[in-house]
Amino acid sequence: MSELLSRATELDAADPLAATRSRFVLDDVTYLDGNSLGALPVGVAERMQDVVRRQWGELRIRSWEESGWWDAPERIGDRIAPLVGAAPGQVVVGDSTSVNVFKALVAAVRIAREGDGPVERDEILVDATTFPTDGYLAGSAARMTDCSLRPVRPEDVPAALGPRTAAVLLNHVDYRAGRLHDLPGLTAAVHAAGAVAVWDLCHSAGALPVDLDEHGVDLAVGCTYKYLNGGPGAPAFLYVRRDLQERFDTPLPGWNSHTDPFGMRPDYAPGEGAVRGRVGTPEMLSLLALDAALDVWEGVDVAAVRRKSLELTDFFLECVAAYVPEGSVECVTPLAHGERGSQVSLRCEGAGEVMRELIARGVVGDHRRPDILRFGFTPLYVTFSDAERAARVLAEILRG
Amino acid sequence: MSELLSRATELDAADPLAATRSRFVLDDVTYLDGNSLGALPVGVAERMQDVVRRQWGELRIRSWEESGWWDAPERIGDRIAPLVGAAPGQVVVGDSTSVNVFKALVAAVRIAREGDGPVERDEILVDATTFPTDGYLAGSAARMTDCSLRPVRPEDVPAALGPRTAAVLLNHVDYRAGRLHDLPGLTAAVHAAGAVAVWDLCHSAGALPVDLDEHGVDLAVGCTYKYLNGGPGAPAFLYVRRDLQERFDTPLPGWNSHTDPFGMRPDYAPGEGAVRGRVGTPEMLSLLALDAALDVWEGVDVAAVRRKSLELTDFFLECVAAYVPEGSVECVTPLAHGERGSQVSLRCEGAGEVMRELIARGVVGDHRRPDILRFGFTPLYVTFSDAERAARVLAEILRG
Repeated sequence: MSELLSRATELDAADPLAATRSRFVLDDVTYLDGNSLGALPVGVAERMQDVVRRQWGELRIRSWEESGWWDAPERIGDRIAPLVGAAPGQVVVGDSTSVNVFKALVAAVRIAREGDGPVERDEILVDATTFPTDGYLAGSAARMTDCSLRPVRPEDVPAALGPRTAAVLLNHVDYRAGRLHDLPGLTAAVHAAGAVAVWDLCHSAGALPVDLDEHGVDLAVGCTYKYLNGGPGAPAFLYVRRDLQERFDTPLPGWNSHTDPFGMRPDYAPGEGAVRGRVGTPEMLSLLALDAALDVWEGVDVAAVRRKSLELTDFFLECVAAYVPEGSVECVTPLAHGERGSQVSLRCEGAGEVMRELIARGVVGDHRRPDILRFGFTPLYVTFSDAERAARVLAEILRG
Repeated sequence: MSELLSRATELDAADPLAATRSRFVLDDVTYLDGNSLGALPVGVAERMQDVVRRQWGELRIRSWEESGWWDAPERIGDRIAPLVGAAPGQVVVGDSTSVNVFKALVAAVRIAREGDGPVERDEILVDATTFPTDGYLAGSAARMTDCSLRPVRPEDVPAALGPRTAAVLLNHVDYRAGRLHDLPGLTAAVHAAGAVAVWDLCHSAGALPVDLDEHGVDLAVGCTYKYLNGGPGAPAFLYVRRDLQERFDTPLPGWNSHTDPFGMRPDYAPGEGAVRGRVGTPEMLSLLALDAALDVWEGVDVAAVRRKSLELTDFFLECVAAYVPEGSVECVTPLAHGERGSQVSLRCEGAGEVMRELIARGVVGDHRRPDILRFGFTPLYVTFSDAERAARVLAEILRG
């Protein structure tokens, strides 16, 4: 047994999060794509049977009240809140990340413009390295609020801010390189310029502490099907800081956000609190699968998740360095812990073909064109042995 | 046995759609709330087990390709298309009705303004009797496209149309009174004014023929959890007429609608066809439950559904007239077949309490404030005996 393999076994034996792996349905695959679709938690299938057969099939319409369907978006939002450092009442679940980016950014521009002086704020800054959908929706938000849109690398945001900046949309962790951005510092810089900060937490929620309240983030959106394991296309979440909720002027004022939805009033009057972020009737089956999936977080400390995440990615990089032929891959994920999310991205010639072969040999990551291999590390179920195996199989493939 | 009860038995025995009732999970409740949440079709629970346990739990990320997840919004749209009279390639499923109203209406205004002359089209007409969310979203669409919004009763639309009209949002069937509006005639009037017609089919899709293509409707949105029985909050659908697809300029340009979504390009370039209506990652569990639910339509002719719907509501009204104390209820649903959807709404003093009592006695409809009892008739599973029972129990309650 190689030294690294025995180290992996020791690290797994000493892992304080080792027990949470049994909360997932896993097999002998090394699954390093939880940053794209989290593994299935135990108990979700059973819950869905109850939701479909009893709540829908037997109670039918009565479930909106009796099964707690109506309040589920806020209730489940409050289950996610502690994972992103938010006090209750500020997170609501529903719609896709893309739709929530639009809501948040338009609302942010409207907040920024309140009480504006002679110069109207008419520019949105967007993370130039963003997952594309954020940029596309930011473009639409800009177009529909008469703003211009300027892509800026996160590190260049402080210099780009100015009196015309209305809102800034940033990714906490870059989807491609896995780079962790400075949420506290950038949020403070945005505020110093009188603008509103919107953070995309897709690649950080459930993987590392976010501390939204502590850092005074204005608005945030995030995905629940990656590190939160909510199921394919599980609904996204929206955070609106409590003191901004009354000023949250949504571009999608659906009836679910109305102060009296069953009053069927012709005029829109928004409800109070997180409910303002709702739009139409939530897709209950997907929403309730997420609810069941969140049970895996019981008793889990996000700080412990972060510690293991860094240990896993450190160990994976160590194994890659030891096993993989020199020069065959280049790590594009920052080595500094303060700049690393919970994935490792390796630049590699023929990455598409290499990933296909990895998958064929039981190591599942993904490929981002043209030349990036992505390996996501979900600390709740990925082991140090998985990390060692992934590097070892990668090396076998690259040695050909 | 009363004469009406034996008539009900005979009508059920002669019903050409009698067999489709066995495609649903039903009990001894008379369920007349399928216009709010359709009953559970047989087979959905089993399908969801496969989706959760095998597609998500075992195949995980591979299901986007191997289980056909990626194309499901268009594929399922094509299953709905024949039910609303649309040729393939024009319907896509995803997001809530509210979100789709916003997409459709903003896109409609943009289409209407193409090549505008000296007078810019700057008014949106909205059905004054609409389900509220349509009005709220129309208000936002108007605000964000620099239009004014004018609520107009559908029958007054022709007179309200003019050179400034950009788009008109109408309900095919009114949610409250169950009134069926003149889709062919109103669409033609909108077109004659050079404006764009957007129809909300929430209360007609699956209940009666819509014939979108035949009548040249421009855009339409609809719900899948009422007469299409897709499950609680099942995703809505969006129809964009084929020759308008290239001009469909969405306000929600999410990455799922990109021509090369995995190219991760910084600039938005929409795909061709119905895919343009997509936004973010679809909520797959809800979407695939809908897919399973659509199996009930196999071999069903929408014209036969409409015939039975009218027979059911006629018969229910006949039973109400025979059983219910004179003057205790007033029918607000039009008696003319050409103006009736698939529900009957009765104005009734103390409607809230009356509906609670009906539900307690096994007849489930719903209540719309302040004084409306709604009874929805889903021809695939509601029987003539259900109609007789509902009227009989209502009469018992009203006699006190």
